[in-house]
Amino acid sequence: MKATVYVTIKQNVLDPQGTAVQGALHSMGFAEVDKVRIGKYLELTLDTDDRAEAEQRVRAMCEKLLANTVVEDYSFELEG
Amino acid sequence: MKATVYVTIKQNVLDPQGTAVQGALHSMGFAEVDKVRIGKYLELTLDTDDRAEAEQRVRAMCEKLLANTVVEDYSFELEG
Repeated sequence: MKATVYVTIKQNVLDPQGTAVQGALHSMGFAEVDKVRIGKYLELTLDTDDRAEAEQRVRAMCEKLLANTVVEDYSFELEG
Repeated sequence: MKATVYVTIKQNVLDPQGTAVQGALHSMGFAEVDKVRIGKYLELTLDTDDRAEAEQRVRAMCEKLLANTVVEDYSFELEG
């Protein structure tokens, strides 16, 4: 089973990396870019076929390691 | 218009960050995790309503700044 995890910075938290990328895009002529937010994208390959269990386990991985839930949100999709 | 960009490391390129996260998950008891690949997830807010133009511009941003096309792949979605 494959899990795709998205970790994003919460809306009310500053994203200096995104601001830097926006500045770089502007200086390269991409003036239409209003805002940039940067997060992480993780692909996990899991050795299990139990979808309900996988969902619970991936949620635990996000809470304990993959996301810092103080400043980040996460979501994930399971397939296979 | 909003663009969501996914930047991933090419399949044949080593991903030491993913390997480190996999090791951490194993040591935390998540033994079912076979493989971890880590990429970037970017949300761009664009001041344009022209979908065709936005697609061309976001592709240019990816090629020139957002992805290192030697070792990374990218894909993106437009909405709004």
